[in-house]
Amino acid sequence: MSDFFEAHRATLDAALSAAGTRGYWSAYPESPSPRVYGETAKAEGTAAFEALLDKPFELDQPTTGERVGAEVSPYGRPLGVTYPATDPDALVAAAKAAGKAWAAASPEDRAGVALEILARLNRQSFLIADAVSHTTGQSFIMGFQAGGPHAQDRGLEAVAYGFAEMKRVPGAVRWEKPAGKGMVVLDKAFRLVPRGVGLVIGCATFPTWNGYPGLFASLVTGNAVIVKPHPGAILPLAITVKIARDVLGEAGFHPNVVTLAADTVEAPLTKALATHAEVGIVDFTGSPVFGRWLRDNVRQALVYTEEAGVNPVVIDGTASFKGMCQNLAFSLSLYSGQMCTAPQNLFVPAGGIDTDEGHKSFDEVAAGLAKAIDGLLSDPDRAAGVLGAVQNPATLERIKTARSLGTVVRDSAPVDAPALAAARTATPLLLAVDASAEDAYLEERFGPIAFVVKTKDTADSIARAAHSAKTRGAITAAVYSTDEAVIEEASAAFADAGVALSVNLTGGLYVNQSAAFSDFHVTGANPAGNACLTDTAFVAGRFRVVGIRTPVAA
Amino acid sequence: MSDFFEAHRATLDAALSAAGTRGYWSAYPESPSPRVYGETAKAEGTAAFEALLDKPFELDQPTTGERVGAEVSPYGRPLGVTYPATDPDALVAAAKAAGKAWAAASPEDRAGVALEILARLNRQSFLIADAVSHTTGQSFIMGFQAGGPHAQDRGLEAVAYGFAEMKRVPGAVRWEKPAGKGMVVLDKAFRLVPRGVGLVIGCATFPTWNGYPGLFASLVTGNAVIVKPHPGAILPLAITVKIARDVLGEAGFHPNVVTLAADTVEAPLTKALATHAEVGIVDFTGSPVFGRWLRDNVRQALVYTEEAGVNPVVIDGTASFKGMCQNLAFSLSLYSGQMCTAPQNLFVPAGGIDTDEGHKSFDEVAAGLAKAIDGLLSDPDRAAGVLGAVQNPATLERIKTARSLGTVVRDSAPVDAPALAAARTATPLLLAVDASAEDAYLEERFGPIAFVVKTKDTADSIARAAHSAKTRGAITAAVYSTDEAVIEEASAAFADAGVALSVNLTGGLYVNQSAAFSDFHVTGANPAGNACLTDTAFVAGRFRVVGIRTPVAA
Repeated sequence: MSDFFEAHRATLDAALSAAGTRGYWSAYPESPSPRVYGETAKAEGTAAFEALLDKPFELDQPTTGERVGAEVSPYGRPLGVTYPATDPDALVAAAKAAGKAWAAASPEDRAGVALEILARLNRQSFLIADAVSHTTGQSFIMGFQAGGPHAQDRGLEAVAYGFAEMKRVPGAVRWEKPAGKGMVVLDKAFRLVPRGVGLVIGCATFPTWNGYPGLFASLVTGNAVIVKPHPGAILPLAITVKIARDVLGEAGFHPNVVTLAADTVEAPLTKALATHAEVGIVDFTGSPVFGRWLRDNVRQALVYTEEAGVNPVVIDGTASFKGMCQNLAFSLSLYSGQMCTAPQNLFVPAGGIDTDEGHKSFDEVAAGLAKAIDGLLSDPDRAAGVLGAVQNPATLERIKTARSLGTVVRDSAPVDAPALAAARTATPLLLAVDASAEDAYLEERFGPIAFVVKTKDTADSIARAAHSAKTRGAITAAVYSTDEAVIEEASAAFADAGVALSVNLTGGLYVNQSAAFSDFHVTGANPAGNACLTDTAFVAGRFRVVGIRTPVAA
Repeated sequence: MSDFFEAHRATLDAALSAAGTRGYWSAYPESPSPRVYGETAKAEGTAAFEALLDKPFELDQPTTGERVGAEVSPYGRPLGVTYPATDPDALVAAAKAAGKAWAAASPEDRAGVALEILARLNRQSFLIADAVSHTTGQSFIMGFQAGGPHAQDRGLEAVAYGFAEMKRVPGAVRWEKPAGKGMVVLDKAFRLVPRGVGLVIGCATFPTWNGYPGLFASLVTGNAVIVKPHPGAILPLAITVKIARDVLGEAGFHPNVVTLAADTVEAPLTKALATHAEVGIVDFTGSPVFGRWLRDNVRQALVYTEEAGVNPVVIDGTASFKGMCQNLAFSLSLYSGQMCTAPQNLFVPAGGIDTDEGHKSFDEVAAGLAKAIDGLLSDPDRAAGVLGAVQNPATLERIKTARSLGTVVRDSAPVDAPALAAARTATPLLLAVDASAEDAYLEERFGPIAFVVKTKDTADSIARAAHSAKTRGAITAAVYSTDEAVIEEASAAFADAGVALSVNLTGGLYVNQSAAFSDFHVTGANPAGNACLTDTAFVAGRFRVVGIRTPVAA
């Protein structure tokens, strides 16, 4: 065990340092290049993925004996993989039993195991990429980067925060208090105790990136963890659980410290698990409806949620109209708008904006955005790489009904790319609406649906955007302006609304992107979620400290 | 402002260091000696207290114009002090308005103000002592120590934790990510934003000691704070609020950053305040019934509670029977058992225990405890100093009905001391019960009521004690044993139940005592409360971080 810790100690130290300074750092290379991961890595990953298809996924954990699993790739292929079905009570009991020795292990031993799990996940990044792509609909490159190294970085970040927090409590101290002419002397020991069994409820679009922070935060702080994937995206988390169980077993712990609770849309296990008396922590990424259910009904556990938001962009002016339109076109198109960080509402003054290309009317701004989207997606292969596929058929329905919500500036259509012949696809739908049409644009319209919202002026844009962030939730906001006063006004308004702001993005960085160790993902300060990935508040409650004090004879 | 920070910087540094090492440290001397606080301090405190009686308490804050306040000293005297009545909406609006500039201040400026408030509170420790004694019924010395310096230490601890947590986030960083042959460069700024208006709900027994952690934790992290005292113990917190407002005003902030919400038993404001949309943090000390109401109904705010527990003592054996009995007698008698840390249930095997005085039967252990209580309280003046007065008349009723719950080993009686002639007093009631009488002893019996519980053996004692801690809550536990294996078994069981343990206390330290910077008061891991005073989890969620990122031209 301590070998694992020593082996990965430098990584942990670097992660701790990066989380403190918050400059750029990453432990796991994001490039799928053969020079980085080896000449054969991609082929091996593909082979490993294909070897899993149309078979039971082997996982030696508590099961009812039945099997579940009906994932269908958004690219067209049913995966044909089944997973052991579980009974919530039996699974929690197994987690609790296995968790005893895990809770008693040192922070170093637990961190060592967690870091070894991450290292092995990193080596399986190509397999994970395929598993993520063929459940979420992400393109291969996004499945690799966001599902692999970036998710691993987020997991490492949680390990680092959890480890730092535990190490802040000394194991023991001699307490010597002057009393009259003598001393009262106590030996005090501090034991870290886990909060309870952790439950991680995965989402269908970013099962690993959104799942790893809670998984690793609960794990490193001493809690056994049950991973409950979305029925549509089980495989990436099943692979993760399998690797975790392998490492736990090798380190001398019972593999049931990490288990999988695969279920079905028809017979979900989530509520039974989340309200189980022995479950002490719930991490959830998903819809506001179920997030609210959890916040209202889970009384025995800490609940950390990332729900959803209506992300705004305020467009006041720009020194690069082309750069702005291209940047936003990419943000609106990337993974077909299925990122929780994708913009939905672009606020533009009725009188238009000033740009490096002269004044642009409201309609010209909207047309510029549409043109940039068309340009980005004109090449079918590039379009396939940017858009990927649509995870849920309901999203296509949503696009259909959304067309009537405003004036269609750019229509959505399937992608005519050979790679996507069997896939469920859709390019962005861009609608123009008046700011008064709040019913249209203030509701979250998940998927490639965006609104250009006509406001009175930029002050109105900022007020509406910040208010929507505060009341409907937002994970990202962006502003385009050449006026420092406007930028400061937007900064203050969005800070007050608890939403991270990107200013004048016109190059190769996008509002959708959130970097581990630097960007705090979700603030926890508006309805988009009650927690941040990752800050101290995300980890500090996952364990508790119990003091034991004994007098020492003077 | 920065003067305040510089003036108190050494205190803050020492507090941060002490909270890390958790050895003995205190910023504010606990001795009311004239050598420490000055020859005239006590007389000045008494004079200042008396000058407040039978008058309106002046506080220049939002008010309806009406006045409230009907405190009666448990020592007999109606205080005759009235406070400005407030309207919850108006008070929250005032707090929010005043909070804007406070939120924008630096962590240093806010910490400076908080530390200056604490320093001035310390100088008023004698006044606070009288105010605490004549509302809670604490003896003068406890009112001084627990209400003054110890409470100030707890406040300082919260300032230190909050400050450290804020400083962990850098104000800005340049983020440089290699991209191809170039770099993506962003300037990132991180703004700390308050969670919302903080509400501190005070209790009737330790208004300052239990109120200061939440008050100072919310304050230093940028939140305006409304202090809602218990109607029976307003004055100590009113004095605190007044001092806070003075310092805020001197530092250039609006005094409404800290306000008082005095109310009455007949027309309580607590629910309206706690569920107000702009209230983001609620700190509560009080009954489990209202704690549960808050946890169930406050959906818009973080809720930190200290509720109540049934604190167990496991008696397996001792190397000092006399020391053990004397130590427990003091713990049961101190402030008439009205401390949240006082033991209630003493588990003793039916077959008795081995001691330095030979084997003692169950009845002999019970008799030894009764005798030690009698001895401690035999001198009326000492009895008055140890017991103080009973805060709430309902406690006397509770003692009356409790007599029928078991065999009376030692009866409760008023104290016949001149100093307590007009006071509401009661010595400890000690009852013997069989372990099967769970209805009698597993319910919290607030006040000087304790049970000697006859168990099968020590294993049974530990199991029952730990189970009760886990299900009913407990803030403290104690074990007496000369067997290391038993001590380890108890340590593991109580750690699992999330309760701090004291081992073999036979001298001048008592299970009731909890030292700032060293003991974590309440674990948050059983029903006695969901929060700990003070750990990182107690402060980390009180502010949020909002990132603002801007590309830098390469």
